[in-house]
Order: sequence, then C-alpha cells, then structure tokens
Amino acid sequence: MIEPAVLKGFRDSLPKEEIPKKKIIRKLEDVFSSYGFVPIDTPVLEYTEVLLGKGGGETDKQIFRFNDNGGRDVAMRFDLTVPFARFLAQHQAELGIPFKRYHINKVWRGENPQKGRYREFIQCDFDIVGPDNAESDSEILMMMNRSFSALGIDGYTFHLSHRGMFNTFLSSIGESGRSVDILRTVDKLRKIGRDETLSLLSGITGDEAKAGKILSFISADEGSFMDTLEKLEELSGGRSEASERMRAIYGMLDEAGIASSFVFDPSITRGLDYYTGLVYETFLDALPSLGSVCSGGRYNDLASLYTKEKLPGVGSSIGLDRLMAGLEELGSPLLASSSSADILIVHRPGEEGPAIKAAELIRDRGFRCDVYLMPEAKMKKVYAYAENRAIPYLLTYADGTYTLKDLRTREERKAGTAAELLEGIAIG
Amino acid sequence: MIEPAVLKGFRDSLPKEEIPKKKIIRKLEDVFSSYGFVPIDTPVLEYTEVLLGKGGGETDKQIFRFNDNGGRDVAMRFDLTVPFARFLAQHQAELGIPFKRYHINKVWRGENPQKGRYREFIQCDFDIVGPDNAESDSEILMMMNRSFSALGIDGYTFHLSHRGMFNTFLSSIGESGRSVDILRTVDKLRKIGRDETLSLLSGITGDEAKAGKILSFISADEGSFMDTLEKLEELSGGRSEASERMRAIYGMLDEAGIASSFVFDPSITRGLDYYTGLVYETFLDALPSLGSVCSGGRYNDLASLYTKEKLPGVGSSIGLDRLMAGLEELGSPLLASSSSADILIVHRPGEEGPAIKAAELIRDRGFRCDVYLMPEAKMKKVYAYAENRAIPYLLTYADGTYTLKDLRTREERKAGTAAELLEGIAIG
Repeated sequence: MIEPAVLKGFRDSLPKEEIPKKKIIRKLEDVFSSYGFVPIDTPVLEYTEVLLGKGGGETDKQIFRFNDNGGRDVAMRFDLTVPFARFLAQHQAELGIPFKRYHINKVWRGENPQKGRYREFIQCDFDIVGPDNAESDSEILMMMNRSFSALGIDGYTFHLSHRGMFNTFLSSIGESGRSVDILRTVDKLRKIGRDETLSLLSGITGDEAKAGKILSFISADEGSFMDTLEKLEELSGGRSEASERMRAIYGMLDEAGIASSFVFDPSITRGLDYYTGLVYETFLDALPSLGSVCSGGRYNDLASLYTKEKLPGVGSSIGLDRLMAGLEELGSPLLASSSSADILIVHRPGEEGPAIKAAELIRDRGFRCDVYLMPEAKMKKVYAYAENRAIPYLLTYADGTYTLKDLRTREERKAGTAAELLEGIAIG
Repeated sequence: MIEPAVLKGFRDSLPKEEIPKKKIIRKLEDVFSSYGFVPIDTPVLEYTEVLLGKGGGETDKQIFRFNDNGGRDVAMRFDLTVPFARFLAQHQAELGIPFKRYHINKVWRGENPQKGRYREFIQCDFDIVGPDNAESDSEILMMMNRSFSALGIDGYTFHLSHRGMFNTFLSSIGESGRSVDILRTVDKLRKIGRDETLSLLSGITGDEAKAGKILSFISADEGSFMDTLEKLEELSGGRSEASERMRAIYGMLDEAGIASSFVFDPSITRGLDYYTGLVYETFLDALPSLGSVCSGGRYNDLASLYTKEKLPGVGSSIGLDRLMAGLEELGSPLLASSSSADILIVHRPGEEGPAIKAAELIRDRGFRCDVYLMPEAKMKKVYAYAENRAIPYLLTYADGTYTLKDLRTREERKAGTAAELLEGIAIG
C-alpha cells in the first residue's frame, strides 16, 4: 500500500475551492474578452536557457529544472512573463501588433513553503504589447476596474505612480545613481513603516536631509489625484513627459467615468528594474493588510532576450490565490457558493424512469440536477449528501407523485409533473 | 540573443486554437455541472512512487521524472486517473460517496512525437465513484450524449459492450485463460481488419475453429441494440448478470429518449485489464477513421494502490485534441469562430473620449469591443488588424459622428451616438 500524499508545498484543489475558482476565472475571462484580449497558452516545460537566459542566475535554486530523457536541460515555467516574451518573439509576424493577450495558468517555484505560499500556484496575466501611449495605459486600468467590479467587490482602489516622475525627482536631488537601491527600499514602505524607511534611506544616501526629501516625495498626498500630481510635479521640478502621460491617463479614466477608483500614490514603485513608466498596485479597501491583489506597469522592451525588435507594453498580474483569500475574508457570495447542483433527485429502486425524465427536463431548463445514484440508501444518507454538497432543493419521486422540498426552509410542494414544480424556483 | 523555440513534442497555443478550445471546454463544463459533477484539480508534480507504484514499470521511459532540489523522486502526471485515485483515497471522508467529478487539464508523456501526438496534451476525464449499478452506467452515457449534442455535432454513435459478457463467452469455449491476449487482439480489429485478427486469434488459441467463433462473437450485429444483445446472450450461453446489466442500461437510455445514439458493438473491449463491466467508444459518423473521441468503462476498484476500501466506478475520457481535429474537419462553427472581438473602434488622435465612452457602452451591452490603440496609424493597418482577428464590425468616430461598418458586406450606417448603431446588430 502506498501512502496517498502530495509533495510539500503542493496541494489538491477540492470542489469547494475549485468551483469558486472556476467562477472567478470565467468572470475575468469574460471581462478580458470584452476588451478584445485573446487567450494564449504555452508549454509548462521549456528549455532552461529560454527561461533563464544564458547562464541563469539567482532564480536558479527556485526553479524545477532537470535533464529530460533526451538529455535536454529543461525547466518548468516560474512565471507567465518570460514564456510570453519568447512566444511573442516567435509568433509576432502572425499575431500582429498591437497584441492584447491574457494567460491564466499555473507556474512553479521551489521556494520554501510558508503560510499562503505554495510551490504551485496560478497566475493571471494580461498585457498590451506594441503601443507606448496613454490610450494603452488607461485601457489596462479600465479593464482592471471592470474586472474587480465584475467580481462584485465593493471597495477597491488602484494606486498609480510613474517611474519616470520618481527618477526625475531623484535626479533633481542628485541621487539618480542610487535609484535601484532607493526604489527597493521605497517599495517596502507599506510593510516597514516611515521610521524604518527613513533610516534605510539615510543609510543609502548618507544624507538625512535627502532621505527626508525622498520620504516627503513618496508620502505626498494632497487628497485628489490631480492635486497630488501637481504637488509631485512641483517637487520634481515642473511638468515633464512622464507627468503629462499621467495627466492624459487620468483624463481618459475621467472620460470613462471611473476616475474615483484611482489615487496617485508615489510610494508605489514596484521593486523591479523592468518597469519604466506607469506602475500600479490594487488594494481592497476593507483589507489593506492583504497587500496588492493586482499589480503591474509599463515596460520598455518585453522580449529583448529573443529578438532585436523593441516590444514596449503595459501589463498586469492578478494574484488569484491572494484575491480568493481576500474574497473569502470579505464573505463574498462568489466564495460561499460552491454548491454542486441546484436540485437533487431521489427515487425508489425500480422507479428510475420518471426520475431520469425529470432530471433531463430540469437540465433542459438550465438548472443543474444531480440524480442520487443509490436508490436503496436510507434518506438520512441522502440528506447528508445534499448538505455536504450545499444542494438547496430535493426532488423525490414515488408512486406517481413528485415532491419538491426546499432544504433550507423545509417547505414542500407536490405535483404530478416535475415541470410544474420548477415554476416557482429561481436559482443562481 | 537566444533562439525563441519550444521543446520537441511541445507547442504553443495561439489565439486561433485557444479561443475555440476554451469555448469547447466551457460547453463541456456546463454539461458536466448540469449533472452535478464537480471539478477538482491535483498537482502537476507528484511523488514518482505515487504515480507509478513501487518500482514503476513499462511506463517509466515515457514519463518526465527527476529529483527535485530537496532530493525527492518526483514526476509529472502522465494521466488524470492515477492522481484521481490518490486524491480520492486521501479525501474520501470529506468528499462522500457517490462522488462525481470532472477534471480537464494537461498531462505529459515522453513518447516519440508523431503527427497529431504531443508530449503535452489535455485530457478531459469524468467519473462516478461509489455505486456499481445501471443507474450510474447510464448516467455517464447520458452525460456523454448531452456533451456531444452541446458541441453541435450532428452525427455521433456510442458503441457499447460489456467485458463480463465477453468473458462468459470465452469461458464457454474454454479460453478464459488467454483472455488478456485475446482482448488486446480484438481491440485492434478496427485497425487491422478481419483477416489479420483471425490469423492472430488462431495463433493465440492454436485453434482455427475457436478463432472463428471469437470473430463471430465480436462481429455480431443484428441491426438493433436489443437484437444484437440477444444474439450475444445466445452465443455466451444465455442471460447472465452482465447481460441483465446491459438490458437495464438500455432501458434507461430509452427512458431518456436517446437510445438511438447507442449501438451494441461486441468488438469494443478496451485493451486495459482495468475495465470489468460496461465499456464504450464514441465515433463521429462522418469520420469513422478518426477513431474514438470518448472512451471508458466500468472498473472494480479505483484506488487499490492507496486504500483498502473498494471504490468501484465508471468513467470516461474525451480526447480533446482528436475531437478538435474532427470538429475542424467537419467545418464546425465552433472551430471556425476564433474572432477576438465583435466590434473594433478606431478614433482620430485626441478624439479618444467619445471612443472610450462608446467602447464602455458596447461592453455594457454584452458585446466584445476592441479599441484600436494606435490612433495615428493608417486605415490600411486598421483593416489588416481587424481581418487578422476576424472582427466583423468597425466603428469609427470623427467630428461628432459615429460610423458602423459591416466588414463582410461593407455596408455603413452613421449616427450621433454609438447606442443607436448597436440596435441593428446581433453577434454570437
């Protein structure tokens, strides 16, 4: 006998998780499609060189890498961005530019598992590649807004900033040379607090006054988006190409009637060097400590590893596991509804004919109907089955009569046909 | 620069494949849900011992197996059946019996790639575990029928047989000892033809007369399901538990009004030892040479490797790649429709406001609307973009007027609001 167990850091998805996960993914896919974004998929296994570049690097230890039976050095993808870059370099002529894609699938990292962190998890990425303009930046943001709205989340706020404005500011105080270290520190503000950030910045710049200036910049908050933007322009020496882009983006969000969901938050920097323009994070208003559930920004060049052609773009990633944890904490009906069927049918042994006919009719009407397949079982078992699966209605058939019972209210109705009993019920 | 290439036997899924694939999967999921089947997922990586049993076996060379960074012997799943057995042994108490699940996801095999065979492919499995009765057998078949109907396929036929009836027959001619070899040979009939099958059977049994009897049995076809069933009962020495089960199953299919899609075909044996009762394959009437697109049967004991508890069941697997190839050959509208949006909006530089508003309105109405994000581009490029993505309508905005053009008929209509132009159009 072999112990049935999964690997450390891996987990099964049981129906009570998998049903809401699929619902959420469908809603997101519907929104993405409504913006003309198309789905793609790529192999789980790739040449290690394709994923890591020549030589590899720090990521090495975190990836599942091995030699296949043909002796090839291969690895499982650790994100969806690198495969997308390879994909686009390879198929660009066929796909055409602008290219808007989404990709929702699993990735693998050999990190040490901790609470809420797994070695196998789902990423949900969407990007617009080709144009470098405010139209694209704002379209990604509008699509994010519609996505969160479609998930029925009440309060969420998109925190926007611009790398270029921050870089201009750092230049203006003579600190552009240390921008990478400063960016990484600023990125931690939300986690480590003002005092700790100030002390780290003093260490990096060797200048308490400068550290204070940086902290004032990233803490600027004049209430409204435009007032904060103007304040930041003032702090970084006036209007610039970067700040004009932010003005244009805000104008478009305003045209779309959704500007109130967006704030200018200069503490958002996104640690990675990769980003060059607009950057953003998304917070659920009721759960600030959850962290960002959708982050991303504009980059200069997606696929420089594989092609000489410049492919600028803007893209986001939704942290699906974190988002689901948040929705659960908020008591979202999406998470609560993992019922496997709307109606359970039970019949007595040998009376399956009318039960089958009723079941098929119920399915024709668009309801989900589960037939209990052990007609000889005691009703106690049937109730336990329905309860375990959160099925709200029980339809029984015996001696020519159908009885529909609402298992929540225990109300019963009887009729000679199943169709009659369907009249009153509406299930989502 | 790194050559952007995928591994041998692997492939990218471009939007023109991925869009129809997602549509097909959604339709199948909707049907499965309508029967109360629930989705599950399992890790891509498992302990090799869990997947192969102690020692492993012939499958060994075909699987992607390696030691992870923690020195564990791990492998990528090569089917969805073994992980399901492990899953059920592990979670049975929580899930409850009967358990009806579906699982649609990728599996990996290191086979030598050939035309239409890949090292990474999608399986679509569904099973009912727990009861061993005609109700369950016929429910799986009903669900298969509804699935193929939901995909809009005109002609398909389910070929049913029963392992037990064949075994009874083999006993009656004193050949039950060689049943494994005989089953494997019979399974090839469709591929190698009658003469070759007869000669192989003669070789196995060492008796031409017996080989002839076997061939008569597996070729029995009296026209109707029930007539063939009766003929087979006659050839295997009368009614038996197995033949009574087939009678009961047929009765239920008849109650459901779908019996005409089913034939009794004793040449169906399914090579594997695994099956113990009902077995079946599914053929598209217009494409008999495509092979079976949905196969399966009843088994005695799903998870004997991991638990002492007997878990009988019945289950099927749809070959999604083969099915998609068939649908394409049949000119199915599902495969043809890979358009990325219903309407493409183009505006002149600086006139994005009304375009954004129109786009959001169009999405609110349930249409998919792509905004062309390079307003400075020539119209020639816009048309190429729309054609490449099979977008049927173009909405332009300039100087206060919206123009909607049907790109197939070149008809144009103009109006002062986008809403007016939506009146006439219906897109699927």
